[in-house]
Amino acid sequence: ASLRHAGVSLRCQCIKTNSKFIHPRRMEDVDIFPSGPHCSNVEIIATLKNGIPVCLDPEASWVKKLIDMIIKSSKKKNKAH
Amino acid sequence: ASLRHAGVSLRCQCIKTNSKFIHPRRMEDVDIFPSGPHCSNVEIIATLKNGIPVCLDPEASWVKKLIDMIIKSSKKKNKAH
Repeated sequence: ASLRHAGVSLRCQCIKTNSKFIHPRRMEDVDIFPSGPHCSNVEIIATLKNGIPVCLDPEASWVKKLIDMIIKSSKKKNKAH
Repeated sequence: ASLRHAGVSLRCQCIKTNSKFIHPRRMEDVDIFPSGPHCSNVEIIATLKNGIPVCLDPEASWVKKLIDMIIKSSKKKNKAH
């Protein structure tokens, strides 16, 4: 889920970012917006399962690990884990 | 942008995935959905700048590189590049 629909947003969406760890199980999705004319920052917005969007710090190492962890979990889907 | 709003989707969104490289400049955002009760697959959905959503293969190495590349670009934002 995201804060905007295609083509609607004309500016940065994150005013500040959360640098504290959030467990991936609490997340419904993680939306990555590349920088561009609308916003010079890369923006990473996690939507929690309670519907609340949280801006994550793209330079925080746990955020990269989180994304890796989510993506890697696709390989374990058929294993007991 | 995403195909669904918080809490609405009850099933997998991707029927098939695109394994061909797409340049990050063509992407408006990349949305990562962890697996869960609604869908046993991790789903990665890029929305192109023309508004078209494309499901990416979470196991394709270029997809991981793409995400790394987007996130890393946040560190270069103040440099001529």
